[in-house]
Amino acid sequence: MNLPLQALPAAPPLLARAAGATLAEQLAQRFAERIAQRLLPAGARLPSVRDCAQRHRVSPSTVVGAYDLLQAQGLVEARPQRGYFVRPAAAPARALPPRAARPAPLDATALIRSMFQAQGGRPAPGMGTLPEDWLDAGLLQRALRRLSGPSSAAGWLRYGDPAGDASLRAALSRRLADLGIAAGSEQIVTTFGATHGLDIVSRALLQPGDAVLVDEPGWAVEYARLTRQGMRLLPVPRGADGPDLAVFEALAKAHRPRLYVTVSVLHNPTGCSLAPAAAHQVLQLAQAHGLTIVEDDTYAFLAPPHATRLAQLDGLQRTVYVSGFSKILTPQWRIGFVAASPALTEKLIDTKLLGTLTSAAPLEQAIAWCLDQGALRRHAERVTARLDAARARTERLARDAGCRFVTPPRGLFGWVDVGIDTDRLALDMLDDGWLIAPGSLFHATPRPTTLMRINFATAQDARFWQQLHKHRG
Amino acid sequence: MNLPLQALPAAPPLLARAAGATLAEQLAQRFAERIAQRLLPAGARLPSVRDCAQRHRVSPSTVVGAYDLLQAQGLVEARPQRGYFVRPAAAPARALPPRAARPAPLDATALIRSMFQAQGGRPAPGMGTLPEDWLDAGLLQRALRRLSGPSSAAGWLRYGDPAGDASLRAALSRRLADLGIAAGSEQIVTTFGATHGLDIVSRALLQPGDAVLVDEPGWAVEYARLTRQGMRLLPVPRGADGPDLAVFEALAKAHRPRLYVTVSVLHNPTGCSLAPAAAHQVLQLAQAHGLTIVEDDTYAFLAPPHATRLAQLDGLQRTVYVSGFSKILTPQWRIGFVAASPALTEKLIDTKLLGTLTSAAPLEQAIAWCLDQGALRRHAERVTARLDAARARTERLARDAGCRFVTPPRGLFGWVDVGIDTDRLALDMLDDGWLIAPGSLFHATPRPTTLMRINFATAQDARFWQQLHKHRG
Repeated sequence: MNLPLQALPAAPPLLARAAGATLAEQLAQRFAERIAQRLLPAGARLPSVRDCAQRHRVSPSTVVGAYDLLQAQGLVEARPQRGYFVRPAAAPARALPPRAARPAPLDATALIRSMFQAQGGRPAPGMGTLPEDWLDAGLLQRALRRLSGPSSAAGWLRYGDPAGDASLRAALSRRLADLGIAAGSEQIVTTFGATHGLDIVSRALLQPGDAVLVDEPGWAVEYARLTRQGMRLLPVPRGADGPDLAVFEALAKAHRPRLYVTVSVLHNPTGCSLAPAAAHQVLQLAQAHGLTIVEDDTYAFLAPPHATRLAQLDGLQRTVYVSGFSKILTPQWRIGFVAASPALTEKLIDTKLLGTLTSAAPLEQAIAWCLDQGALRRHAERVTARLDAARARTERLARDAGCRFVTPPRGLFGWVDVGIDTDRLALDMLDDGWLIAPGSLFHATPRPTTLMRINFATAQDARFWQQLHKHRG
Repeated sequence: MNLPLQALPAAPPLLARAAGATLAEQLAQRFAERIAQRLLPAGARLPSVRDCAQRHRVSPSTVVGAYDLLQAQGLVEARPQRGYFVRPAAAPARALPPRAARPAPLDATALIRSMFQAQGGRPAPGMGTLPEDWLDAGLLQRALRRLSGPSSAAGWLRYGDPAGDASLRAALSRRLADLGIAAGSEQIVTTFGATHGLDIVSRALLQPGDAVLVDEPGWAVEYARLTRQGMRLLPVPRGADGPDLAVFEALAKAHRPRLYVTVSVLHNPTGCSLAPAAAHQVLQLAQAHGLTIVEDDTYAFLAPPHATRLAQLDGLQRTVYVSGFSKILTPQWRIGFVAASPALTEKLIDTKLLGTLTSAAPLEQAIAWCLDQGALRRHAERVTARLDAARARTERLARDAGCRFVTPPRGLFGWVDVGIDTDRLALDMLDDGWLIAPGSLFHATPRPTTLMRINFATAQDARFWQQLHKHRG
């Protein structure tokens, strides 16, 4: 209680003597928030009184007072000899079905939500996008201004085309040609972001109970959505060159999956890209087992030139290509697209129609305009050069902090072994004001992990690594 | 072949002597297009040679030539003594599961798609929105211009809030208060249109195999989506005052449905609104049977003042309220929202996140600005006054053409008995360039019907009713 609070580091959410609230009340309030956010889910154990007192620099009696308050509020229960646990009824109902639930100290959906809730200024090493000041707001503004004239406005008074704005689909067709992917604009369906594209594809092609091959590690939102749709996930270990082909084949034989969902280029979270030979073999396996491949190319604009895409080799016969603009222009406008064979495109349009009817042309037209500007090309070049420099700096900081890179550092994300459980670390770092992305977010099968994903652009602050080093003890 | 083509009425898609294509080729081309659009689905019978010749004012030998061409293209097959039929492989694969398929001459998804594809100028009596020139493009332009300044643009560089833009949710909270519905902005989730709102609610609350009560007649997109999601539809006859409560109760007892999805005010397609007493009873039944009610208030801005909403009586305890702006501001921007209890709101946000991550703020902020303008209120008043006049005129034209109103004319839509099969009529009128909405689009259980939905605002052209009268024979 008599700690020199002013001596604490300036990181945001620390306890302070505020008017009208005791330290115990403030501490209880903080736990109550974590419980409400489901960052402490039902069944999670609160830290021991001693650990908590040490961590928050308060006396043990303050912690006991806080835990008593939480118990009185019905949020936690004491179990003799074992400690305090979050009560089942305390956390709101979960959107994920029971089988995705796990007794880990961290709730994936909650952490994902916190990643998408507006951050308070400081770049978060766990976030999935470029820092705001790396992006070009001026380009977006010019594009939107250009397209709020009367001739565009006339189009706003009727439903748009269910396939999406024609100018955007034409611009995307040209963009895909540059990547070596032949897709006429009639083969392109626009979506409310790449995630919506992935959602439409899985809804159009899968029935509940279908098996789906996924990369592991991979992205929690994809796992959660497929699981929520009632699919059986078949994780395939993702190596430096691509998926483990032996496991891929064995799973394909045993479970007859309908789809393989993969990020071929600058894979999230490992940063690895599919080698051309592996791409060829994946397509052969897909052919042999009647699989459709969903190629998520979210990081397309950050990719090295001549990166190999499955859709390029395959000519969109057996592959469906999904991408968007969150990693280069704006995460917030929610513009993405799907390119597919003509027959599949029809199915995708029907599925889109049942979910959202049509598209919103103003933002789609603005993105189309950006695509055709030299400004976007130059912007992408600047971003990749800056990312190269950031990667070098972050890599050095991470190694100095005792972390090990599991895969060679490439693209936006690093896949790092910190040597301690990262679910626990995520909660501790959150208390210090740092959002990290623990490895559990990237595993289809829950397991304790010492891995985490870092964003090379937003993890350049030496204080972050110092703090992390401290927790490693 | 020697018909005076210039003497034909000026309606759009008639055969004409074009350079490089015979009349037979043109006729074959038209059928091929209908087959590709699935307006003539697999198994559908082509008109007899005599009927077709008469209808298109060509000689029987031209029709035979056209049918031969279609056969050579593999699109149709001849069955001796029976005629020509569309081949199963000719139409692209359908997004709807087999049980939604039906041998009717018209494919619901295809017709829905044609309703959402940009129409060529002429207002379509079957469309679901107000005519373009009734809407206020200037208001939208001012709103969007205001919000493309640097201060807004800064926000575009990070993910938006998964719940939706804060200014829109605050404006919607005020709007709902005006309707007597108490919902804090933390109880509101924005969506990409009302359809997306309905989609999110059903995904958050239902599991495949669940039973869902729906109004019948009702809207095909809702039926198709729920069916596609694997739900069992339980149609409840919708009368002038509300659903048939005896049927409602019997179905609720027998099938234990999870949801009842309904348009209480200005119901699509009947135009009827729920009577206050019926609303009270529906809520009691919902309470007794543990049902959640999804109240689709898409036509809110066209509704009479003091119309009764379930959400108002119930205080969003057991009801989820869904609405949007397609019927008053713009069908194309795709802005809608859901209001629900705080616990359910959390689930809805999680479900939205897995499908589209977050929201696109520029258009949401523009709609928020419009909501707070007197201009929107005045616009809505003008529109409803104009709709009253259009309804009077269209009602007279319809009755003069021998049609009967099944329900009292109200709001945007009339539910009309034309005395002949409206699936057949829809194809015939489409050939004349008129898109109508046949009754089959509004039935959960396929059946031949002589009903159709008309849009009072877009069915004011006397030539439409003359043409329809001709087909009634």
